[in-house]
Amino acid sequence: MEFRRVSEAVIRRMPRYYRQLQVLQAQGVERISSGKLAQMMRLNASQVRQDFNCFGGFGQQGYGYNVTTLLGEIKNILALNKSHKAVVAGAGNIGRALASFDHFEQHGFSITALFDVNEELVGTDVNGKPVLHISKLEEYVKENNIAVGIITARRSAAQELADRMVQAGVKGIWNFAPTDVTAPVPVENIHMTDSLICLAYKMCHNMGDDE
Amino acid sequence: MEFRRVSEAVIRRMPRYYRQLQVLQAQGVERISSGKLAQMMRLNASQVRQDFNCFGGFGQQGYGYNVTTLLGEIKNILALNKSHKAVVAGAGNIGRALASFDHFEQHGFSITALFDVNEELVGTDVNGKPVLHISKLEEYVKENNIAVGIITARRSAAQELADRMVQAGVKGIWNFAPTDVTAPVPVENIHMTDSLICLAYKMCHNMGDDE
Repeated sequence: MEFRRVSEAVIRRMPRYYRQLQVLQAQGVERISSGKLAQMMRLNASQVRQDFNCFGGFGQQGYGYNVTTLLGEIKNILALNKSHKAVVAGAGNIGRALASFDHFEQHGFSITALFDVNEELVGTDVNGKPVLHISKLEEYVKENNIAVGIITARRSAAQELADRMVQAGVKGIWNFAPTDVTAPVPVENIHMTDSLICLAYKMCHNMGDDE
Repeated sequence: MEFRRVSEAVIRRMPRYYRQLQVLQAQGVERISSGKLAQMMRLNASQVRQDFNCFGGFGQQGYGYNVTTLLGEIKNILALNKSHKAVVAGAGNIGRALASFDHFEQHGFSITALFDVNEELVGTDVNGKPVLHISKLEEYVKENNIAVGIITARRSAAQELADRMVQAGVKGIWNFAPTDVTAPVPVENIHMTDSLICLAYKMCHNMGDDE
């Protein structure tokens, strides 16, 4: 099936459905209506049905969705049954935390190495993963068939690292540096500082949680 | 001035303007047109002008913006000249990385303590900040006038921690747990796993970077 025209907004909601359905499955819930699911996620029912219709729809009108089936479908759509190898460029606090955080492996992502320019870090390991010199980046990505390049380096190095990773063959970039990197492959940015700044703005202007 | 009706989308672009203007200032650029700024940020010029008009506008038609003045205005709007004390609930990898990452202090945020249930962590410190037992959370928040509660605990504990933090007086929640917490104060969620899952989806469906 071809989902290429699915909008960014729909794509962004899919992991939220996935999380909510995991909770429901763990609670032993077998069926759920679009209305109930919408309510739990602060969406409306027609939105939920429209979202699922982008992928062919998974329910029968009036019967609701089977939680386990729906979870399986979403897992397929999100390619969570595939595995992806990743490397981290930047072995500072955030890079080390990501490499130590085994939670991502549940979703098929395994970090196999970190890279840094700092000679004191090169040769050490983080959670059993080696810290290698950044000059080895391209060679390692090619030889180990790395799919995801994670950037946790400083802002000024981010774009160059992204370019090098793409050149070496990564298929996606996960960027934590406080700048927007561009690439011919998909890029996801986690801008923690931007988020914190938005929080401060909302706090100072007395805005409630409107998500 | 009252900005309460500024949309979420505009608020989210403000930190991006702030970052871009910092780069321009560092490069010694004195004036910038809305068209040029838009191009750098992959927006369009009328969007940039509209965004700034939400706050009263900062330029004269045809003259462009003075970079330093604009940066100062945005800094005021974003309340980056204020300081905010924060605590972290959950002294695991992510919590420890945040407490070690001094970058947030540049934006007025200082983490003063971490909290955990793990007796082996309680009594240690991270980057000079004490790890206290979670039972001390409310007392500490009240006594130290903590404005921001950062949640880096597991999913099942997140909502209860948010409730306790709000009860004790925090004015905003920065949530890293993989669930959506709700609160009567502003909440910003950093859903790293959701972002990674979206990246995998785009990689598997050959979607280029369309941000």
